Amino acid sequence: MTQNPTIPSPTGTTRLYAMLGHPIAQAKAPPMMNQLFVQLGVDAVMVPVQASPQALPGVLAALRRIDNMDGMLVTIPHKFAVCDGVERLSPAVQLAGSANALRRAADGAWEADNFDGRGFVAGLQAEGWEPAGTVIGLVGAGGAGVAIAAALVMAGIASIRVRDVRAGQAEQLVRRLNAHRAGVAQVEPDGTDWAGADIMINATPLGLGSGDPLPFDPLVLPKDTLIADIIMKPRETRLLQCALGRGMPVLHGEHMLSHQIDMYRRFFLGDA
Amino acid sequence: MTQNPTIPSPTGTTRLYAMLGHPIAQAKAPPMMNQLFVQLGVDAVMVPVQASPQALPGVLAALRRIDNMDGMLVTIPHKFAVCDGVERLSPAVQLAGSANALRRAADGAWEADNFDGRGFVAGLQAEGWEPAGTVIGLVGAGGAGVAIAAALVMAGIASIRVRDVRAGQAEQLVRRLNAHRAGVAQVEPDGTDWAGADIMINATPLGLGSGDPLPFDPLVLPKDTLIADIIMKPRETRLLQCALGRGMPVLHGEHMLSHQIDMYRRFFLGDA
Repeated sequence: MTQNPTIPSPTGTTRLYAMLGHPIAQAKAPPMMNQLFVQLGVDAVMVPVQASPQALPGVLAALRRIDNMDGMLVTIPHKFAVCDGVERLSPAVQLAGSANALRRAADGAWEADNFDGRGFVAGLQAEGWEPAGTVIGLVGAGGAGVAIAAALVMAGIASIRVRDVRAGQAEQLVRRLNAHRAGVAQVEPDGTDWAGADIMINATPLGLGSGDPLPFDPLVLPKDTLIADIIMKPRETRLLQCALGRGMPVLHGEHMLSHQIDMYRRFFLGDA
Repeated sequence: MTQNPTIPSPTGTTRLYAMLGHPIAQAKAPPMMNQLFVQLGVDAVMVPVQASPQALPGVLAALRRIDNMDGMLVTIPHKFAVCDGVERLSPAVQLAGSANALRRAADGAWEADNFDGRGFVAGLQAEGWEPAGTVIGLVGAGGAGVAIAAALVMAGIASIRVRDVRAGQAEQLVRRLNAHRAGVAQVEPDGTDWAGADIMINATPLGLGSGDPLPFDPLVLPKDTLIADIIMKPRETRLLQCALGRGMPVLHGEHMLSHQIDMYRRFFLGDA
């Protein structure tokens, strides 16, 4: 999708979906979901909802009480907090501790799932990389990072090593993953050279800004290490440019999202 | 406007407007406002928000806390309740006790106004009827009725007589109007024949359903009495059909809304 699609105006009968975040201007999902609704002939619209962390619990509770609100997508920084605002958590959400999609179930309760990780794994596999048995290096244990780690563990990786500038975040993720499968995860110390990793993943926001430092140095890694970034804009971050310049294989951030749209469709609309 | 307009999909930068009601499926304003946003090149969308009376205070408080929420329109049954959820009430809202439009002011506070009444008066005048000096019969002292009564009093009518099946509603409106201008209003008893009224207004929901009884009997009134209905769908209610069949002048419900759109534009967008 290269430009913003046109859609029928919402009317009184239109069902609502919210995209929750703070900030929200960068969100790519609303036009993608709205294009999907048009293609499927579904009378629904997704709108951006910017709510501060302080406002989030009240806003989520109130959005749930809107009769024609059927679902929400969640982005930075609310992926952890929304888990406290719904009744049911999927296995992926329980393992990751974060959610990026909420829906109203048939009985009126709300349930959370997380497709960031499964989207990443699907993108990886579609590009010809099978994560089972590999060693993963993950930089960033925020909302996206924990989801990717959980999905990779569920996909059968050999092990995962995690670093986050907030040491507590990495420790909490590693504890959670090891509780699920003993010994699969460890915290990686500051200054590590990541020797032995097959796939290195940037799940931090570093690279959104053109002056950002690299999340890790790809130049000291073996040249066949896959360098993956979850940042979508710019399409080629400085990290990926460095790796490509050296002839290393890369995975762009767009793959994580492009595979999620079909998952969202099934989650929100079933067989529509 | 005969069909639903096409608009650009909301993106992450889109500003939000909500149309609050219960039910909300009948609301005409979202497509009209969305067409206006497109015409003006404003990156904004109005969506329907159905919230029950029990949920309304919490939903309103939370919608106010959404950073990109700039305004709301309000319909049945929330026009009274929303007055308790904002900091500032316009003179029209203070007189009517009901509001149909809310906006975030430059300082972050929310302010309420009511364009139902002014829309009705503008529609009346555009069709060649001047309310100043006339005697009004009003059936229905709900959210729309009180706004119309307030605007007519502000426009200089001689007097207004009000009936509502909920006697307390009519009494409350009459008290409010007489506090503003002593003696301008009185409660009209059940079974009245409305003798002496120049303009008779239906501001009840009677006529939305094809089997509804008439809100009052136009056949016993002088043939030059103007019969006005605020119902928009069907365009010609049974009340208006009866009046037209007898050659009486009528005012359709659509005039009230068509003149409000320009007022909404100025209220929400200023000189955009």
